[in-house]
Amino acid sequence: MFESAELGHKIKKSVYEKEVPALREALLDAQFELAKSAAFQVIILVGGLDGSGRGATVNLLNEWMDPRHIQTHGMGEPSDEELDRPMMWRFWRSLPPKGKIGVFLGSWYTWPILNRVNGRTEDADLDQSLERAARLEKMLVDEGALVIKLWLHLSKEKQEKRFKELEKNPLTRWKVTKRDWKHYKQYDKFRAVHEKVIRHTSTAEAPWLVIEGEDAQYRNLTVGKVILKAIQGRLQLEASPQPRILAPPLLPPIDNLHLLKTLDMTQAVEKKSYKVKLEKLQGRLNELTRDPKFRYMSVIVVFEGNDAAGKGGSIRRITGALDARYYQVIPIAAPTEEERVQPYLWRFWRHLPRKGRVTVFDRSWYGRVLVERVEGFCSEADWMRAYGEINDFEAQMVRHRLMVVKFWLAITKDEQLRRFKDREKTGFKNFKITEEDWRNREKWELYEQAVCDMVDRTSTLMAPWTLVEANDKYFARIKILKTLCDRIEDKLKELHETGIDYLDKPKKGD
Amino acid sequence: MFESAELGHKIKKSVYEKEVPALREALLDAQFELAKSAAFQVIILVGGLDGSGRGATVNLLNEWMDPRHIQTHGMGEPSDEELDRPMMWRFWRSLPPKGKIGVFLGSWYTWPILNRVNGRTEDADLDQSLERAARLEKMLVDEGALVIKLWLHLSKEKQEKRFKELEKNPLTRWKVTKRDWKHYKQYDKFRAVHEKVIRHTSTAEAPWLVIEGEDAQYRNLTVGKVILKAIQGRLQLEASPQPRILAPPLLPPIDNLHLLKTLDMTQAVEKKSYKVKLEKLQGRLNELTRDPKFRYMSVIVVFEGNDAAGKGGSIRRITGALDARYYQVIPIAAPTEEERVQPYLWRFWRHLPRKGRVTVFDRSWYGRVLVERVEGFCSEADWMRAYGEINDFEAQMVRHRLMVVKFWLAITKDEQLRRFKDREKTGFKNFKITEEDWRNREKWELYEQAVCDMVDRTSTLMAPWTLVEANDKYFARIKILKTLCDRIEDKLKELHETGIDYLDKPKKGD
Repeated sequence: MFESAELGHKIKKSVYEKEVPALREALLDAQFELAKSAAFQVIILVGGLDGSGRGATVNLLNEWMDPRHIQTHGMGEPSDEELDRPMMWRFWRSLPPKGKIGVFLGSWYTWPILNRVNGRTEDADLDQSLERAARLEKMLVDEGALVIKLWLHLSKEKQEKRFKELEKNPLTRWKVTKRDWKHYKQYDKFRAVHEKVIRHTSTAEAPWLVIEGEDAQYRNLTVGKVILKAIQGRLQLEASPQPRILAPPLLPPIDNLHLLKTLDMTQAVEKKSYKVKLEKLQGRLNELTRDPKFRYMSVIVVFEGNDAAGKGGSIRRITGALDARYYQVIPIAAPTEEERVQPYLWRFWRHLPRKGRVTVFDRSWYGRVLVERVEGFCSEADWMRAYGEINDFEAQMVRHRLMVVKFWLAITKDEQLRRFKDREKTGFKNFKITEEDWRNREKWELYEQAVCDMVDRTSTLMAPWTLVEANDKYFARIKILKTLCDRIEDKLKELHETGIDYLDKPKKGD
Repeated sequence: MFESAELGHKIKKSVYEKEVPALREALLDAQFELAKSAAFQVIILVGGLDGSGRGATVNLLNEWMDPRHIQTHGMGEPSDEELDRPMMWRFWRSLPPKGKIGVFLGSWYTWPILNRVNGRTEDADLDQSLERAARLEKMLVDEGALVIKLWLHLSKEKQEKRFKELEKNPLTRWKVTKRDWKHYKQYDKFRAVHEKVIRHTSTAEAPWLVIEGEDAQYRNLTVGKVILKAIQGRLQLEASPQPRILAPPLLPPIDNLHLLKTLDMTQAVEKKSYKVKLEKLQGRLNELTRDPKFRYMSVIVVFEGNDAAGKGGSIRRITGALDARYYQVIPIAAPTEEERVQPYLWRFWRHLPRKGRVTVFDRSWYGRVLVERVEGFCSEADWMRAYGEINDFEAQMVRHRLMVVKFWLAITKDEQLRRFKDREKTGFKNFKITEEDWRNREKWELYEQAVCDMVDRTSTLMAPWTLVEANDKYFARIKILKTLCDRIEDKLKELHETGIDYLDKPKKGD
């Protein structure tokens, strides 16, 4: 894997000085083209050995390119804010939008490598991390990003030589730390782990490019040319043809039975009994969120449902029981301009709560496989791959003690009609009903199919869907509150039993 | 994941009898179209719970379709032959060729699931297996196969009911075994592991289709329609457009240095000294292969190199030291008709040796990234993904104690010219030189680039490349024999230390 990066590549100063001006100009041109087209974003990971020139490479890119269109992220120790969320959160919040370049010094590979080298994890844990990384990168590429992974390498002799040189010079002595020499002693271990990382995650869509790091002029020219060629190449690709669907189709309807039809929509709760139950459940919910262990977890509540199914009212019954400092309701409508130039999950990642909080999504990432599917806002290939991407997304939350509670509020077609008419008649409900609602109603069966497929493909033990019979609002609200309380109680019990008393540190398999 | 498959789907007999004739006819038509076009193969995996009708489904497919174009593989206990090789070998040997349908009852998921349920493995081991499965399936799809994964499911109550019904009837009593009841008691464990498997390996290109298994008529119609739609859909896809390359390009040449240029091509061995060394090394090799632990490993030797670099002569020096019953030399030329209708790795899988054997490949799977790349016999996307596929392939061998020893025999352009001319002049060497050799020679630099990329991307700790300076044949042969002996000796030492004394059983992570 490292053969060509240990040969002693060198570029003469005279050659370098002759080549650089043209390269810089071409890079600026490509960058300008990219910004103008805003067709895709460029994500550059700079990884490699200590002393191989990673920092210098990042500096170089900033020097050579237009700083307005390039963002650099030195991923050092995570902040409190970041430790509170799944490990990938810090990368999602730093993703460049389309048209821009994001350079990452340190990446989702940093911790898995250090953990493995230091024996804190096993090979199988490393494999899990690497597969997660590969899946993330595949998703980024499927969403249109150009992912360039640069790996700067040094042979053992060269690393030693480099450290010694730096130490000799009083101006650069500070660059060599005890940690560097410690890592140097572990050179062979690092090399073996690095090799595994490169082999396992050099995928067809985002391979590692291994570059010898010793000679700065060789390194700079190589990095510059690789990035230039990659951006130019992608700019020249014609607009994406619809990707071919290679999978067999989803299950066709064979009999007339489906999930939503099996719900008993007549279930109801009397008003008087409702008031008693509601008060009790709200009290219980409030108490649960004040449990001392609650600060080591968080809760994501997802509301999806038919139009006029009563999502808003249900959400208010939840938030009514919570301390306003600790919850947030995120209504999801059409994406903003800022959100449209990012992978579709970006706008949900940004709202993930800190520990000890509750976030309620009024509609969610499931829009991808519901409205976007039915209305054709994305291609079939896009929503087909979304099921897996969403499961991966939720798995990351669950791994980091963000509980995911998902409700589908179902009403019958007749009940919807009644509510629509009521909304039209009642002045203060008027704003709630639009032309679009009537249009969606015409596609009732298509939406039903999409809901069933969604539940079948994304209801998991870690993050199950709860189908809520919502023809009777009282019944629905009680079912929702009870489900939520039960789930939180179970999780708290688990936290008490396992004695969790820390926030999320980079851990096994991260 | 199983919601829709626990609803109690049913099809009335009258509906069934009305629908089946048309479905069967359509299936036969589709099968005929498929056979005629031979455009792709269909791989159907039938998985699921005991008692869910897996066997009946396989029988049904055989009954409904033309048996000449469908092959069924009940993957029970592996044979001795199969235990001797990597786990996937048995599936590769059973892959249907293009135009045919292969039905697998039991698959690469069977053992990972059983091992996990029975606590022989951890979650991380299961994840490793699942990722390997997903990578395999992705490769099959990239090679053109249609992969249909059917999962037959039953709720716990339905499974119990099913077993009791079968037991009541004297004609079907034999179908319910002790093992079935044991698994029934583990239902919840199975369900949890199944869910994980389905979630993790429902990829965009090969998702699982979960089907309720209780009612035979519902199950049959569903399976039949799914397969029909999938085959029809793929037949209608237009011929594959060239897949777009989304990865950044390989490293461009920056300076004039590359791997092959760093070889000291003047190295030579005197004839007299050669004879002594050769005899000694051949003796050593022979002795090594007679070590009692040698029967628990096998050796794959790969020879690649410039035309006229001396591969044949080197191979004869190896085989000359071996017992003829225990080695095989596989010369790789253009693929046969039978091989062309399979994924490109198929023709190498079939030659993997049993334990205790040596197989020498005179040219190999590396043709994909050498001649096929340079001559344009496959698309850029194809050879770009091949590096990862080849690493996965070799990783499977190494995991199962098939040692992979790879030699690149390098000669200079001048030396090649000398040998070509010599071949033309010498009668008994005439057959060795063709027009093609001269044509290849014109692409010398392109081949050099391909070789460097190949070494950089596929030389790994588990299966490193050895570059052999072959201008002097004696030197080359000695270096090859010595490398081979050293590698075998190391492996034998390891086997002695770990006390291996078994052939490959399905094990952790399989």
